[in-house]
Amino acid sequence: MSEVKHVLSERQETILEIVRTNSPVTGQHIAERLHVTRAALRSDLAILTMLGLIDARPKLGYFYTGNKEEDFLSRTLTEIKVADYLSQPVAVDEKMTAYDAVIALFTEDVGTVFVMADDMLVGLVSRKDLLKAAMGNNDLRSLPVRMVMTPVSKIIYVEEDEKALVAAQRLLEYEIDCLPVVRIVEDRATKKKGLHILGRVSKTNITRLFTDCAAGRRA
Amino acid sequence: MSEVKHVLSERQETILEIVRTNSPVTGQHIAERLHVTRAALRSDLAILTMLGLIDARPKLGYFYTGNKEEDFLSRTLTEIKVADYLSQPVAVDEKMTAYDAVIALFTEDVGTVFVMADDMLVGLVSRKDLLKAAMGNNDLRSLPVRMVMTPVSKIIYVEEDEKALVAAQRLLEYEIDCLPVVRIVEDRATKKKGLHILGRVSKTNITRLFTDCAAGRRA
Repeated sequence: MSEVKHVLSERQETILEIVRTNSPVTGQHIAERLHVTRAALRSDLAILTMLGLIDARPKLGYFYTGNKEEDFLSRTLTEIKVADYLSQPVAVDEKMTAYDAVIALFTEDVGTVFVMADDMLVGLVSRKDLLKAAMGNNDLRSLPVRMVMTPVSKIIYVEEDEKALVAAQRLLEYEIDCLPVVRIVEDRATKKKGLHILGRVSKTNITRLFTDCAAGRRA
Repeated sequence: MSEVKHVLSERQETILEIVRTNSPVTGQHIAERLHVTRAALRSDLAILTMLGLIDARPKLGYFYTGNKEEDFLSRTLTEIKVADYLSQPVAVDEKMTAYDAVIALFTEDVGTVFVMADDMLVGLVSRKDLLKAAMGNNDLRSLPVRMVMTPVSKIIYVEEDEKALVAAQRLLEYEIDCLPVVRIVEDRATKKKGLHILGRVSKTNITRLFTDCAAGRRA
């Protein structure tokens, strides 16, 4: 919390402490404690309310919300959509080999390559998958990519309208480097569900999001 | 900018626009434009000033600073230190083989392994380096790790007292997944400089930092 402490003035800190220990408390009471007029407090109370640290209720007074100053930051960061931070997907066809996937990986300099069949996602392979395959004395040129990929049933993904925060949480929770950004589609005839790929979001995208926010460059 | 717009009320937006097009402008002038008293404006002016969007100068009035609302967010994010978001380094000795590095990489589930000699950093190897070596028909068991590593002279690093933002910017600029966090030490006898490893910071750490900030969990 120390990093954002400087946002509040000493008087605002004092007011926050009074509200915290006396909720609900009237503006009049706070003014008396500080030996100032109610008008003089108006700005400070407005700032504390805007930051969500206190809340005013008619006829009762001010309440301590229990929010931290960071919650203000948090409200802004949680709104960013994954659609604003995705990259183009890199893919190979399911009929190709593990060697083709390695070439795509190096040519496009990505960590993950998607495997497609009829425009639908059927799997993905990471550097780690391919390194493991290469270590296993396989000839990658004759090894079908399907043999080393993570199949679509086990793929963790995000949908296009989800938040970037959700993508970041999944990347961490499942210890993966990249998620496909998908639209779930249903085949009209067979009613079978499939994943249509719109992009990828990796820890690189989240790192970019962080530097953009820190540099005040959020689009 | 749309994501943080909701922070400002409609009246605050109007005031900001008046200040932007009329700097410097007195509180009296703004009050007249809005048909309210100066006292009624006090909270709004305080909030705009705290967010750094306008600035008050004695005897002149209010100025438009040119800052964006994100700058408030930015000031908080830029203060975070890399030391608060580093992981333990994973290392092999320079006498070991590329195969040993692969094993360390899989055992510890990291993307980068540091190469050490006498407690000093002499190089690093990534999944990509090792995949490239494996593809080259090498026997990794007899290939010295030194032959595939990036030597220390070409390593991008951060020092322990730098900001997390700097680390994130370097990860993006140099298109790498992981930076060693180092202390630069000088050998007393030889005056030669060396890098003492304190940890590593990867895009995973930056992703964690983002989710912590978004969840209001910053320590």
